[in-house]
Amino acid sequence: MAEGQFAGIIERGEETQMIKRLIREIQKKNAPIVVGLDPQMALIPQKLLDKNYQQYGQTLEGAANAFWDFNRAIIDAVCDLIPAVKPQSAMYERLGLAGEAVYHKTISYARDKGLLVIGDIKRGDIGSTSAAYADGHLGLVTVGEKVYAPFGEDFATVNPYMGTDAVGPFVDVCKAQDKGIFVLVKTSNPSSGEFQDQILAETGKPLYESVAYMVEKWGEETREDGYSDVGAVVGATYPRQGERLRELMPHTYILVPGYGAQGGRGFDLTHFFDKDGLGAIVNSSRGIIAAYQKDNYAGFGAEHFAEASRQAVLDMLADINGALGR
Amino acid sequence: MAEGQFAGIIERGEETQMIKRLIREIQKKNAPIVVGLDPQMALIPQKLLDKNYQQYGQTLEGAANAFWDFNRAIIDAVCDLIPAVKPQSAMYERLGLAGEAVYHKTISYARDKGLLVIGDIKRGDIGSTSAAYADGHLGLVTVGEKVYAPFGEDFATVNPYMGTDAVGPFVDVCKAQDKGIFVLVKTSNPSSGEFQDQILAETGKPLYESVAYMVEKWGEETREDGYSDVGAVVGATYPRQGERLRELMPHTYILVPGYGAQGGRGFDLTHFFDKDGLGAIVNSSRGIIAAYQKDNYAGFGAEHFAEASRQAVLDMLADINGALGR
Repeated sequence: MAEGQFAGIIERGEETQMIKRLIREIQKKNAPIVVGLDPQMALIPQKLLDKNYQQYGQTLEGAANAFWDFNRAIIDAVCDLIPAVKPQSAMYERLGLAGEAVYHKTISYARDKGLLVIGDIKRGDIGSTSAAYADGHLGLVTVGEKVYAPFGEDFATVNPYMGTDAVGPFVDVCKAQDKGIFVLVKTSNPSSGEFQDQILAETGKPLYESVAYMVEKWGEETREDGYSDVGAVVGATYPRQGERLRELMPHTYILVPGYGAQGGRGFDLTHFFDKDGLGAIVNSSRGIIAAYQKDNYAGFGAEHFAEASRQAVLDMLADINGALGR
Repeated sequence: MAEGQFAGIIERGEETQMIKRLIREIQKKNAPIVVGLDPQMALIPQKLLDKNYQQYGQTLEGAANAFWDFNRAIIDAVCDLIPAVKPQSAMYERLGLAGEAVYHKTISYARDKGLLVIGDIKRGDIGSTSAAYADGHLGLVTVGEKVYAPFGEDFATVNPYMGTDAVGPFVDVCKAQDKGIFVLVKTSNPSSGEFQDQILAETGKPLYESVAYMVEKWGEETREDGYSDVGAVVGATYPRQGERLRELMPHTYILVPGYGAQGGRGFDLTHFFDKDGLGAIVNSSRGIIAAYQKDNYAGFGAEHFAEASRQAVLDMLADINGALGR
């Protein structure tokens, strides 16, 4: 392989599958959780905003750099406790190019701290277009004789509405580069049922079960034993559906958003896991990164927001591991 | 409104609806078409690549600047003929931050040339996250006392899989800023039927018809008379479904991808239009931007790729306007 910038190429250790690397980190840290790095202006301590506005002006760059300070402090405070972070691309895109630059820096910084990175990008298009998203986020891009990993996430979330033409190119990159994806199956939001819960005439089952069936199929070529590199997103807010989907997708790791702020609790989540306590990873975003704004953690004060986040991670772990009886 | 960078705020003329502005431009130019600016390395003349590699090295920046030269030449060559361009965000994201910068520059340049810009981003998430995408691409972002339009597209494409929680925040921005969206309904790709064509038990109709019903509903508050600012994407490759969807969505403009390279022809597309020859806008990407690589236009030579694109636009217009009998 030619010379180039390999910021996105990770040390794989012994694993040839990305999902095995995630499982190893979950077991090592006894932490089936991921922290969502979804910064918003209203979640950032005013002092941090003001400091950056002084340096960069009241600009998109100033706001983006406040996100960067915020993310870095939280990553430093929690990186020994968790296997992965999940930056939400929307929050960075909202700030235009300055935001995208911080999305990229956050990915690199988290990886340098030994964390896996799940890019919550929910992309999905067709053919060469979906391949372009997969290359840019998970894969390699050749320019002349050089090779680059443009964004360098380890996992990405993918939207299945356009079918195999959308998901297939991501699966190809997973196979080629030992990366992973999580496909939206049953999302955590109140209106997820509008289309996802529609009962199909052919199967008598909801649409999300057909998507689940395809997720298992898409994953086939990426698995050795156990779980495949093609995971699923199933919201914490739908525990009954989670139980059913755990059964329907025996080789599929489940990324579970909606814990905390959206209403899910550890007790509701036990059925997302397999009998070994694996098979699921639970995300919390606002509940962790903006913990200092919640009554429970107000004692930390805005200046110690990252310590509040650390305590919130410890409490979340106690809740989930307690519910799992470990 | 406070001082700031208003690159994304357009002159609205008399119209208070974005869709009316699009219709005005379509009528003025007698051109119900949009050119997809989807640059790929393989579509760019080698000389243009080499020139940029010499200047920037074999880097993502070098490749992205070749995209920029390519786009600019094509925009210059066709801007008097067409109402709008549709840059595909995936192709730029593939080149990381350097690509994103060219995505942004392309939008600004096209607008300066009087074109409307449809950002083909196919985003969709929930609540504040979908709002962040809508703000960043179509809306305004406040930083302290200043206001910015980060990407500044006029329209964006949106993925409906997550329901009203995904589309609603985009509709809110359409209302607030007089912008528009096109929601994926029945996409042009071969596997679009895997989920979109599933017959629903409740309605006895395919899923895409339920999405179409919701698109009409989402659009209600954005329309005055005639068409709403909430459009739909329906692939040229499915003319029969296009005819049905034209009936089902009387207030919905249809963006029609899949002409040319994907197999659609003008003759197949007449039923996407209303009786006044409005109601649809047909996209061609590769067929226009890489026309010089096709046998028909090989005479132009790689150096005159932009002139080949102009001729391909004229030929596409003749095909479609001919089919529409005008």
